[in-house]
Amino acid sequence: MPLPPPLRLGLVGTGRIGTAHARTIAERVPGAVLAAVADVRAGAAGPLADTYGAVAFDDPQALIDSPDVDAVVITASSTAHSDLIVAVAGAGKPAFCEKPASMTLAEMDRALAAVDAAGTTLQVGFNRRFDAGFAAAHAAVVAGEVGQVQLMRSLTRDPGLANPAAVPPWTVFTQTLIHDFDTLLWLNPGASPVEVYATADALVAPDFADAGLLDTAVVVITFDNGARAVAEASFSAAYGYDVRAEVFGSAGMVTVGDGALTTARVSTSAGRRADTARGDVELMGDAYAGELRELVAAVREDRQPSVTGHDARRALAVALACVESVKAHAPVTVTQAQARAVAA
Amino acid sequence: MPLPPPLRLGLVGTGRIGTAHARTIAERVPGAVLAAVADVRAGAAGPLADTYGAVAFDDPQALIDSPDVDAVVITASSTAHSDLIVAVAGAGKPAFCEKPASMTLAEMDRALAAVDAAGTTLQVGFNRRFDAGFAAAHAAVVAGEVGQVQLMRSLTRDPGLANPAAVPPWTVFTQTLIHDFDTLLWLNPGASPVEVYATADALVAPDFADAGLLDTAVVVITFDNGARAVAEASFSAAYGYDVRAEVFGSAGMVTVGDGALTTARVSTSAGRRADTARGDVELMGDAYAGELRELVAAVREDRQPSVTGHDARRALAVALACVESVKAHAPVTVTQAQARAVAA
Amino acid sequence: MPLPPPLRLGLVGTGRIGTAHARTIAERVPGAVLAAVADVRAGAAGPLADTYGAVAFDDPQALIDSPDVDAVVITASSTAHSDLIVAVAGAGKPAFCEKPASMTLAEMDRALAAVDAAGTTLQVGFNRRFDAGFAAAHAAVVAGEVGQVQLMRSLTRDPGLANPAAVPPWTVFTQTLIHDFDTLLWLNPGASPVEVYATADALVAPDFADAGLLDTAVVVITFDNGARAVAEASFSAAYGYDVRAEVFGSAGMVTVGDGALTTARVSTSAGRRADTARGDVELMGDAYAGELRELVAAVREDRQPSVTGHDARRALAVALACVESVKAHAPVTVTQAQARAVAA
Amino acid sequence: MPLPPPLRLGLVGTGRIGTAHARTIAERVPGAVLAAVADVRAGAAGPLADTYGAVAFDDPQALIDSPDVDAVVITASSTAHSDLIVAVAGAGKPAFCEKPASMTLAEMDRALAAVDAAGTTLQVGFNRRFDAGFAAAHAAVVAGEVGQVQLMRSLTRDPGLANPAAVPPWTVFTQTLIHDFDTLLWLNPGASPVEVYATADALVAPDFADAGLLDTAVVVITFDNGARAVAEASFSAAYGYDVRAEVFGSAGMVTVGDGALTTARVSTSAGRRADTARGDVELMGDAYAGELRELVAAVREDRQPSVTGHDARRALAVALACVESVKAHAPVTVTQAQARAVAA
Repeated sequence: MPLPPPLRLGLVGTGRIGTAHARTIAERVPGAVLAAVADVRAGAAGPLADTYGAVAFDDPQALIDSPDVDAVVITASSTAHSDLIVAVAGAGKPAFCEKPASMTLAEMDRALAAVDAAGTTLQVGFNRRFDAGFAAAHAAVVAGEVGQVQLMRSLTRDPGLANPAAVPPWTVFTQTLIHDFDTLLWLNPGASPVEVYATADALVAPDFADAGLLDTAVVVITFDNGARAVAEASFSAAYGYDVRAEVFGSAGMVTVGDGALTTARVSTSAGRRADTARGDVELMGDAYAGELRELVAAVREDRQPSVTGHDARRALAVALACVESVKAHAPVTVTQAQARAVAA
Repeated sequence: MPLPPPLRLGLVGTGRIGTAHARTIAERVPGAVLAAVADVRAGAAGPLADTYGAVAFDDPQALIDSPDVDAVVITASSTAHSDLIVAVAGAGKPAFCEKPASMTLAEMDRALAAVDAAGTTLQVGFNRRFDAGFAAAHAAVVAGEVGQVQLMRSLTRDPGLANPAAVPPWTVFTQTLIHDFDTLLWLNPGASPVEVYATADALVAPDFADAGLLDTAVVVITFDNGARAVAEASFSAAYGYDVRAEVFGSAGMVTVGDGALTTARVSTSAGRRADTARGDVELMGDAYAGELRELVAAVREDRQPSVTGHDARRALAVALACVESVKAHAPVTVTQAQARAVAA
Repeated sequence: MPLPPPLRLGLVGTGRIGTAHARTIAERVPGAVLAAVADVRAGAAGPLADTYGAVAFDDPQALIDSPDVDAVVITASSTAHSDLIVAVAGAGKPAFCEKPASMTLAEMDRALAAVDAAGTTLQVGFNRRFDAGFAAAHAAVVAGEVGQVQLMRSLTRDPGLANPAAVPPWTVFTQTLIHDFDTLLWLNPGASPVEVYATADALVAPDFADAGLLDTAVVVITFDNGARAVAEASFSAAYGYDVRAEVFGSAGMVTVGDGALTTARVSTSAGRRADTARGDVELMGDAYAGELRELVAAVREDRQPSVTGHDARRALAVALACVESVKAHAPVTVTQAQARAVAA
Repeated sequence: MPLPPPLRLGLVGTGRIGTAHARTIAERVPGAVLAAVADVRAGAAGPLADTYGAVAFDDPQALIDSPDVDAVVITASSTAHSDLIVAVAGAGKPAFCEKPASMTLAEMDRALAAVDAAGTTLQVGFNRRFDAGFAAAHAAVVAGEVGQVQLMRSLTRDPGLANPAAVPPWTVFTQTLIHDFDTLLWLNPGASPVEVYATADALVAPDFADAGLLDTAVVVITFDNGARAVAEASFSAAYGYDVRAEVFGSAGMVTVGDGALTTARVSTSAGRRADTARGDVELMGDAYAGELRELVAAVREDRQPSVTGHDARRALAVALACVESVKAHAPVTVTQAQARAVAA
């Protein structure tokens, strides 16, 4: 029996995460090939395309429409995500989109509607779900090992803030903590967020406070099952990239995330040392491979991916409520409409 | 050179923690003896006194005034703490008082004034400070290893809620989280809390929600150096007693608290297991010994103890602000007056 | 610039490890494709070949000679390894051979001579070297962090013994501990083993003791720099697959290997649990990918692989000395000839 | 009911461990007082006696015979242990003796006979048994959690070798590893050692090799239930004091010993650090308190202590077999007579 032909992926956007995904596709996603790369910056797609023997496009629409592209991985600027999702759906092809899938609920709804209308699929890049530790934590929660969820925690700390001036306002909520919001929603299955209290500050780069930079944030989410969740983020962890979560309930607790790079421990006169993971690819590389394998599997099996645009909408609703909370300096309600889990 | 005679301690209150402290004094506090035990419940002091060869009193004042008592350990009902502190100071003797030292700031100020007027000392039972791990964390912060403090966490989870009906309102803040508030204030040296947001619920024993029981709480504290701290508590951890903290700053992070009972790890077909600490004495026994040794040392050296009533006042101010926050369903300011660190 | 064409790998032997390597090649080795599969058992190569779109051969020599095969991965029966290495060298192609590369030093020397004569390369499947933790331990040793090596440990415990009757005598040394011997030689750079004491028994499957099965073994190796190393093996670890090492020296220690499957920890009334790795692919999957990537890299860069047949010879010499030691019930010398590190 | 009067302990020997035990008795052993201190070096007992308000003796026999001494703790030079045990037994008093209780089996038998004849008791200072982790490991083995014992490990690494010239030959076996031998015998209940292979070298202080110093050793013990145990020792661990054990069996494994000083972990740009225990008192302080409490409890309850001279004899037999093995450069049999577990 001959193998099915590989799924030909087109990648739109050649920034840091686009470059990482291109490499992951080439090296760790069986059944897929990187067939095409597009970037709206003229000529930008070329080098990455060449590295992997893909075709380069300046026009994302041309990539999307190419008969040599079976599915599209969107790693462009966040503000372009919604339009690209609509375009990919319009071409009748499956899309994988980095988070945030949209910057507003209206855009998000437009994207979801386009996907639904086209009968295609949209997977969103909530990579924690594909980390083995987070997946084990989720399995423990689903299996009832922690009982009724009561207290939760999720945090993301990035290793550094390269260019504070380039960080749009509210990024800490819409780009960083959106991962944690999805994690918390996922780890509290069946529950919906009803209220959010958020506080944020410019502690890493205080010189940019006046420009609106918020680089440190803490969020408390109250769920309709009474659970309280805390999400935390910082743009600068001296020791590297740090992603952890905890779920505590009536029957126990599950924690996930350790940060040690390997199992090696060096003990010297200075004590015992574990090297820490320094970047997201180092820490989450297996999860990046996992989510792109899920893309291929879902397409092959003609089914919805395990994390969809509806999940993205729920997390976005929390992120936007955080913005409101900071502005209001008060807890704010996540409306039913915002929080609803739309049936796939 | 003959040894100095032992410090003769009087213990007021023979509940769970009083009993634990009596045993600790007898077994692990060199230079001290348990000389007297009092309990306002007639006859209640007898058995504990007998166990350790101490004299029993029904009247705490008689114990306080006894010429055979050099210093007094107050482990009575919380509502009696302030009056007892005032009485001990009135007798010109050093006092150790379990937390909370008072239930209101007015009472606290009265107690502090009495101690100051008498020129005596007051140590408060914030035991985390005497746990080796917490002490190492504090030392790391003071040494600058984490840099400028930006994000903090402290949690206390008790192993169970024996009698929900007996728990006074706001206990989760004034009795449980007050430990965490002291921990957070201590681990952020030089900073003062400026705002508190608290949320709490009855998730462990929902049947008692109508009676005002709050058994699960999350608090966000904003400090004047910008740091955000999260304190969490639950009255029922299935796996035992859980006390942890984390300080994250510009140069790194320190975490403390593990929960494993010993270094033994058993690996079987069910995976690898670490037994967890089931009770506070099991987890914090060394810290209980440490704080009572500090009591003896401070008296011997005629100095202030390392944790005083002024620390208790600061933590109480945060706890009371939490009560206000829950009532107001909003963040509330910790006033300057409340938060001030009064010079010892 | 077009990508170089992929390296076309031929796989000889479709047992458990051959099947694992086939999957790894297909999924995680960029720049390589599984082009051909051979198995001397008639028809056995077909299903695995079909799974990955490769050509099936019954005759390994035909695969080796195929113009569509650039390099050969040998995962056949151990007794066939030497002849296959010679055949691959004879075809002027690079070979990767699972351990043990040979069963006797004479065979090993014949294989090495064939490779040298042909000017080709031979990589041997000592996978610990490609595990991130072991690599970090090696880096620490090479960097001098542990100082002069004095005490070492390496262990391998398999999760189970499926068919004791099928296990050839001395397998525990020549098939299992040979991994540990390579690890210990590698982690004590510049030193050579001078003496071996080995003891072994049938503790897992005592019914097979009379048939010569040895399923549990302990070996002490004395090196010419004075270091003593202990290697241990068992054929049945109830908790899964366990691979660890430790190097202790004048300046400190490095340990590697943990066995926890993920970073998730579940705490319940039964204590805290970490799931353990149950199989070699689960625990060493990344290392399997790493060694096959090294095969591709070495061929591409026209250089020797980082672990060669000469390393295999050194480890084999120790394994054979263990057999002698058990027979003699005494420590035995590893002769200079056996232990020599032949310049690549 | 009045408390029983405290057990009055006499301490013979004021070296490092004697000083540590004196402090432990004073601070952490309820129901006991340090009543007397003796040291054969004229005047040496005085300072330690003064520190704790005890009476000083130059003549150990005078202390032993003193009516103010109820039991004797022997921390003198190892060569004096046997005679002191005989003398304490002769006075009809219970003895606690640091390891090794004797230097030869003949002396040991003489001491055991004296204790038996006098109907008194002898406890030996195998402190691992009183460490919470080791005790949990033992409990796991006894409970059958690891099944049939097959492979074991125990190690002791001291933080440094202060004065190599003062170390008697074979100290690594008779003074250091004797702890590990007791640990291994204890953790393999019901089994007896049948053969020992030992190898040792001067790697820490090679300049003293010619003077007979052996500072690094590895021992393999074969038990009559087939289990193989490895004991390892070094006189100089750069990172501190290191005591660990492992028992592997048909149903699983238990490990014990971690070396981290506290639960604090500091993560900085250099990675994550745990401080390590630097000395035996730091690491084993609770165990020291535990064994002395057992002394008091056994006397109070008029029973044998949980670790007796018979245990000391078994461990000594292994140590002496190690000496033979090194001399013979071969495995040697531990004779039935040596290994027999004499009924208490």
